[in-house]
Amino acid sequence: MDSLTPPPADTTEALTRRYGADAIPPAGPWNETIAVMLDHRSVRSYKPDPLPPGALETLIAAAQSAATSSNMQWWSAVAVTDPAKKNVLAEIAGGQKHIEQCPLFIAWVADMSRNQRISDAEKTDFETMPWLETFMVACIDAALAAQNAVVAAQSIGLRTVYIGAMRNDPIRVAKLLDLPHQSFVVFGLCVGYATEKGEGEVKPRLPQSTVLHHERYDATHEAAQRKVYDAEMSRFSARHELQAATWTQRVLNRLAPLKSMNGRETIRASLAKLGFEIR
Amino acid sequence: MDSLTPPPADTTEALTRRYGADAIPPAGPWNETIAVMLDHRSVRSYKPDPLPPGALETLIAAAQSAATSSNMQWWSAVAVTDPAKKNVLAEIAGGQKHIEQCPLFIAWVADMSRNQRISDAEKTDFETMPWLETFMVACIDAALAAQNAVVAAQSIGLRTVYIGAMRNDPIRVAKLLDLPHQSFVVFGLCVGYATEKGEGEVKPRLPQSTVLHHERYDATHEAAQRKVYDAEMSRFSARHELQAATWTQRVLNRLAPLKSMNGRETIRASLAKLGFEIR
Repeated sequence: MDSLTPPPADTTEALTRRYGADAIPPAGPWNETIAVMLDHRSVRSYKPDPLPPGALETLIAAAQSAATSSNMQWWSAVAVTDPAKKNVLAEIAGGQKHIEQCPLFIAWVADMSRNQRISDAEKTDFETMPWLETFMVACIDAALAAQNAVVAAQSIGLRTVYIGAMRNDPIRVAKLLDLPHQSFVVFGLCVGYATEKGEGEVKPRLPQSTVLHHERYDATHEAAQRKVYDAEMSRFSARHELQAATWTQRVLNRLAPLKSMNGRETIRASLAKLGFEIR
Repeated sequence: MDSLTPPPADTTEALTRRYGADAIPPAGPWNETIAVMLDHRSVRSYKPDPLPPGALETLIAAAQSAATSSNMQWWSAVAVTDPAKKNVLAEIAGGQKHIEQCPLFIAWVADMSRNQRISDAEKTDFETMPWLETFMVACIDAALAAQNAVVAAQSIGLRTVYIGAMRNDPIRVAKLLDLPHQSFVVFGLCVGYATEKGEGEVKPRLPQSTVLHHERYDATHEAAQRKVYDAEMSRFSARHELQAATWTQRVLNRLAPLKSMNGRETIRASLAKLGFEIR
């Protein structure tokens, strides 16, 4: 584990970090793997130290061990360490310096091109390709794989942050990485060792009772639960000198104005150019 | 860990199971968490034994510890244990008996309704909602969360299988679980203890060199690598008396005929009825 903040040996401490003291769920089974996951935080400041030998291959082995729909394996990964390429990716992402800084950037590719090459080689039309369903499956396959890589990384003391801003300009990213038609970078991932100041703190999430339903969806108590979470996030924001105090305010800031999408409302047109019909 | 097949203490053994003896990647760092992930197999036969107390809450705590885009937390989970409900879900999934059999079924919901309720409560239009980008983020958030739950489950000896067939009829699933407008079950997950015969074997994946690219995408050697994998999957198929011998043949069977989608080519229309514009 990372030397800076060992995961708590104690379940209650880990659950308190994740939910705040006012919304701790019942404690259940506990082990090192669960502790690693509970200790997750997204890190945006990295030391220059490279990964240990074989670590990238271990991350990818973990990624390939995730489930994949009908074993179609709809994803690829491009490992980027070249500083010039990382600089361009950082620029595409709106100047996210941690992309330049991290020793390894993994671009996770929703990859329909590989199966398309089988269609071409076997001279057989694949009727299942142009649909929203198939596009979704490719994105989900990539996400399941990447999350296993993230957990593997954390388990050996590395930190990560997902970079959704690869979708600010999927065409430029695809060109930079020589992606074939019918593939695109669904998100990136910075991987490396956190600096001391970058290590940060576990971010509290919504009370478990807000997201977990039993037998049927029931939002009866959601507004009251959201107040508890708003208070927790206010304390978190105060500790980090962030402006938007409550979660409700953050949701309003992020979801109300179209400009907060940084142009990603045009992604459907970009993906069409990259060969995704998404009918 | 599951008592039936302990994860291999030895890295090489785990990598051989995952890739076959002809395509073992370099061994890197190794620990219990990585061993748990490498040992994954999808299980379709469950004992009736319930989960330990607090296990569901631990799985959800792991799920909520996954990254979520801008902390918007676009997902919910509905835990289903009611046999009558599981029977209907099994029927929707084309008669998948393991959905009836497993003690816990988790429906993973891409949930834009919760943030929509904030828009409604605050009388503020959310301009970012109707886009493909936002829909994708909701599906990806759900996938990252679910995968953490899967790893947590495996770490305490449980097995799982994702059920994509919830998308055969998203409207019927939504009605059954009382989902609000702007939410849908992106996939289900069976959770429980494997029967001895159901435990199965780790399924080999494509050689790592096929999915992992360095600095730029390069499929130069892909056709040759696919032959290695076809041979590995032929051996796997022979051991399990499966019909389609090679991976190439499985891809052809799964992706060529539209009927293999079980109606999921209509999902865009169904999702529109459930409140997803996906512009």
